[in-house]
This record gives sequence, C-alpha cells and structure tokens, in this order.
Amino acid sequence: MKTIHCKNYNIHVNNWKSFENYIIDLNPSNIFVLVDENSEKYCLHIFLEHLYRTCHIIRIQSGEQNKTITTCQWVWTKLMQNGADRHSLIINLGGGVIGDLGGFCAATYMRGVHFIQMPTTLLSQVDASVGGKLGVDFAGFKNMVGLIKIPAAVFIFTDFLKTLPNDQFRSGYAELLKHGLIADKESWSILSKQEKIEDLDYEILVYESVMIKKSVTEQDPYENGLRKILNFGHTIGHAVESYWMDSKTPLLHGEAIAIGMVSEAFLSYRIGKISETDLFDIRNSLLRLFGHHPKFVKPVEDLINLMHVDKKEF
Amino acid sequence: MKTIHCKNYNIHVNNWKSFENYIIDLNPSNIFVLVDENSEKYCLHIFLEHLYRTCHIIRIQSGEQNKTITTCQWVWTKLMQNGADRHSLIINLGGGVIGDLGGFCAATYMRGVHFIQMPTTLLSQVDASVGGKLGVDFAGFKNMVGLIKIPAAVFIFTDFLKTLPNDQFRSGYAELLKHGLIADKESWSILSKQEKIEDLDYEILVYESVMIKKSVTEQDPYENGLRKILNFGHTIGHAVESYWMDSKTPLLHGEAIAIGMVSEAFLSYRIGKISETDLFDIRNSLLRLFGHHPKFVKPVEDLINLMHVDKKEF
Repeated sequence: MKTIHCKNYNIHVNNWKSFENYIIDLNPSNIFVLVDENSEKYCLHIFLEHLYRTCHIIRIQSGEQNKTITTCQWVWTKLMQNGADRHSLIINLGGGVIGDLGGFCAATYMRGVHFIQMPTTLLSQVDASVGGKLGVDFAGFKNMVGLIKIPAAVFIFTDFLKTLPNDQFRSGYAELLKHGLIADKESWSILSKQEKIEDLDYEILVYESVMIKKSVTEQDPYENGLRKILNFGHTIGHAVESYWMDSKTPLLHGEAIAIGMVSEAFLSYRIGKISETDLFDIRNSLLRLFGHHPKFVKPVEDLINLMHVDKKEF
Repeated sequence: MKTIHCKNYNIHVNNWKSFENYIIDLNPSNIFVLVDENSEKYCLHIFLEHLYRTCHIIRIQSGEQNKTITTCQWVWTKLMQNGADRHSLIINLGGGVIGDLGGFCAATYMRGVHFIQMPTTLLSQVDASVGGKLGVDFAGFKNMVGLIKIPAAVFIFTDFLKTLPNDQFRSGYAELLKHGLIADKESWSILSKQEKIEDLDYEILVYESVMIKKSVTEQDPYENGLRKILNFGHTIGHAVESYWMDSKTPLLHGEAIAIGMVSEAFLSYRIGKISETDLFDIRNSLLRLFGHHPKFVKPVEDLINLMHVDKKEF
C-alpha cells in the first residue's frame, strides 16, 4: 500500500480502503463505470465488491481501433440517457484505451465532470495513469484529438495484472524499460535482464516507474521541454503503431515502442549521444524480450510522413 | 480603442494594431481562419487587410444546427490535411457558433493549440468572448460536450456589427440587457428604453458589458457559485431554444433568453425576490423590444424535462 502525492491529486497503489473512503467523501450524484469486455470479465467483479453504491456500467469494445470519436459519442449518449449530471463520477476501469477515451469523455461531458482512473493493465498503470493526457485517435493518427486534464484520483491495483495475457504484459514492460532508460540506469540494468517478467513484484516496480513519470511531468506538465524525454521511442514508435493500426494484426503499443526505442537509440548513437556499448545493450535486451518483428519491413517514406503529423517534434 | 486585461489573456476592442503586433510576437507556424458563409462574406475581407501572412480558410455552415461533433470532425480533418501542428494558430472569425466550436476544435486538436476569438456578432462580442466556455451541442442539447479554456487573446471590432441583420442585433441585445439586469441597474434603465438599438455607440456598450461578465467569471471561473448569476434567463431560455432547435424556424439565442428572463423574473417575483414593479418593468421592456413570440405555446412538461438535462442547476 503506497500513495503517490501528485499536484492536485493522488495515486493510490493497492489500497481499497482509500478508494472506499474517497467515494464516501466525494458523494457523487451517481456513478458510471466504463469497461471493455476484458475489464468487465476480469476486473469488474473485484471492483464491485468495494463499491458500496449502485452504479451504471457503460461497456465499449476493447482495442485501439475503438479509441475514436464515434465511441465517445456512444459514451456521451449513455451518460445522458442515464441521467449523468455535473455531480456525477465516471470511473475508468480498464487499460489505456478506457483511460484515454473515458477521461476525454468525462473532461468534455457538460464541460467536465469528475473522473477516476483505475488502470488495469501494466501499460496503463505505469504510463497512462500519470500526466493527464486524454483523448482519442482520429483519421488514423494516434491521440490527435484530446486534452490534458488531471483526474480526481488514480487507484492502481496490481492484483488486476494477474489476469493479463503475456503479450499485454510485455507491452507494458516496454514502458517500465523506457522509464529505466531515461531516468534510472540501475533499474534498466535489472529490468532488462529479467527472464520471467510476469513473476516480478509489481507493487514496487509500478510504484517506482510511476514516481519517475510523475517527477518528469510535474516539472513540465504541458510538454514544453523536459517532458519530451518521456517520448523516447515514441516518435518512431507511434508511426510504426499508426502504420499497422488498421491491419489485421496491429502492433501493441509497447511492441511498437520497443521498435521505436531501438531505432531512436541508433539515432542517438549516430549523433554521438550514446556509446556503441549502450546501443548494443539496448538493442540486444529489447530483441531478447520482444523478438524481431516480421511486420517491421521499413516503409521509410510512409513512416516519416506519419511522424510529420504526430504531435511530437523531432 | 480599449483593452480589457483578463487573467492570462487580453480582450482588445477596436485595435487592429495590437492584432497585427500579436501575430508578429506569436509567430505561429501557420494560421487557420474559421469562418461561416456570413463572416466570410461580411468580415473576412476586412480581416485579411490586417493579416500580413498567408492563411488557410476553413469554412463551415452557419447556424446552431451545425454546432455538432460532425462539424468538429470536418474541422479537425481540414487542420490535419493542411499541416496544422502544435505551433499553429486558429482564429475564430464569426458568431457564437464559430467561437464555441472553433475554440473546442483548437483546444482539443493535438491536445490543444493556440486560438484567438474574433467575435463578429453582438451576442458573441458581449457573451461568448469572455469566460472560455467552448463546445458543441449533442443529441439535441445545447453545449453538452465541451470544456472551459481561455483563448490566447480576444479581438473585438464593433465595425463588424454594421453588417448584422436586425434579428441578430436583437439577439445580442438580450445579453446586454441581462448584464444590466444582474449587475448594473442604471445600464438596464437606459438600455431597456432604447428605440433604435442598432444606432447606439457599441464601442462603449460592448466594453461595459464585457467588463461585467469579466468581473463575474474571474471571481468564479468554474461556475461553482457567483457565475451562476450569468445564467439568468438561461435555464428556461436554453430549454426553449432546445425545444425549437430542430424546427423549421428555430429561435435565436437572445430571443429564447428574453423569454427565459421574463419567465425567471416571474419566478423571482413569486418567491419574493423582486417587486411587482420590477417584474412589470422587465416584462414590458422585453415585450416591447422582442414582441410576443407565437412559438411559445408552453409545452411545460417537455421544457421541464429539457431543463433537467441542462448543465445549469435550479
């Protein structure tokens, strides 16, 4: 049980009691819980054991391909139909798509109602839960429509990770590795050498990773300078992810980011910012954990065009 | 030429020089101007004389019925297609729909780019230009999807009012009257007795009205208390406006608000908050200026249901 104090909100790790107290204190007019079929199946029953209130469940389809304005319209409609008002609370129970889209819907419904992020995947626990980035993909581009707004609170429960499929675990692990690479050499050194990544103690790992992201985002909430360090692997990674987004077998975010990190480490090496030893360490570790990706056939021109439209800058 | 200093941004009245300097100082990567067919016809040529830069024009259809997410999707697409990036500037040249929708699109494109409000109708100059309320209508309800975000700057030019049709003039005049009623008895007394409202000195009137709204919104930016005073006439007025929104002859905002103000003044009288003399003064003045509205056939149940869904509270 740990609590991370951010500016204007807290991130609670493995603390149902503080969740229960939070609901009592906030006393919302009604509660809406946004889930997808995965979080509904694996997490909702645990969640409901700790919610001593009635609530409305809003279900959406999982997957990045559903992180769209069309899905937002569905959510806003459900909120209206079930009497959500300015004192309602929206709880986003699920992975990154649920948090990004549900947060955006909450931040724009009636010009903003309270929302809680309850991330259930490793990726969303260490990445999407901090920094307040919300939004949806648009016209094939990731996160083109959105805004930055902090949640009322974040509640992370690492028990939810026990039901996570292996590929989802690896996807989240890429962000843990990134936080190590950009801010904690020792952490990188340990994490990059692990064999059975699903057996680690995630209460500590998630806490430490969130602390790194929190430290960076609080110094630069609107991404004017330092926060860009969190984009390591993401300029190329987002282009790779966007390029295969509409294919039959889209890449998971972390898989694309792993490709992005190897590529950007190579660029860093080419401009003399990291040594050949570091480059090989990064490349070999990520290849060992993620494997070669057969889809990465290097459609260079297309990827560069995608990067031009991406929010991040070179 | 006057400048109103708001928290974190300024409202410039009739000052092209400061607009020109603002653009030079901001030096955006590119400029997008959102217009509808009215502001394109009557205002754009004046605007372009003062913009010593190239710009992209994005045209949308005028009218509250087009203040929708579908129109936002059109605007976001145009921004993407024409290379808008995080350093682009969006200038909303038009009435309330342009400002609300264009501001929302700007505040959510790539999680927020700079935008300038350049309101061209009396209503938008005295109302929508202050307070940062942005958004669109959804599922037949006004402003259900949106957020509060202040613009980079507001530039008001009262010369634009010279091309305004009479009904649009009256619609804006309702908000001037409201600001008088809630905060400046002398102003109400003068404004409510005017005959030819289109011949008044609007540089002064707009300035004074904006000062009232600014004073209220700065004391309560998120509408937790005092700001609700600005909703006078709007709880009933919005319901009236929503009820006829999809009819062949929808009511203009100010016409609906005039009905709302008479109705809410009556409620105030019934609970002993205003005298019978004041009620008659309000009713007679508004009836003289706006006339009886044949559409107001009092579908009471429907209107009360609409009010329940409205953001404002009783």
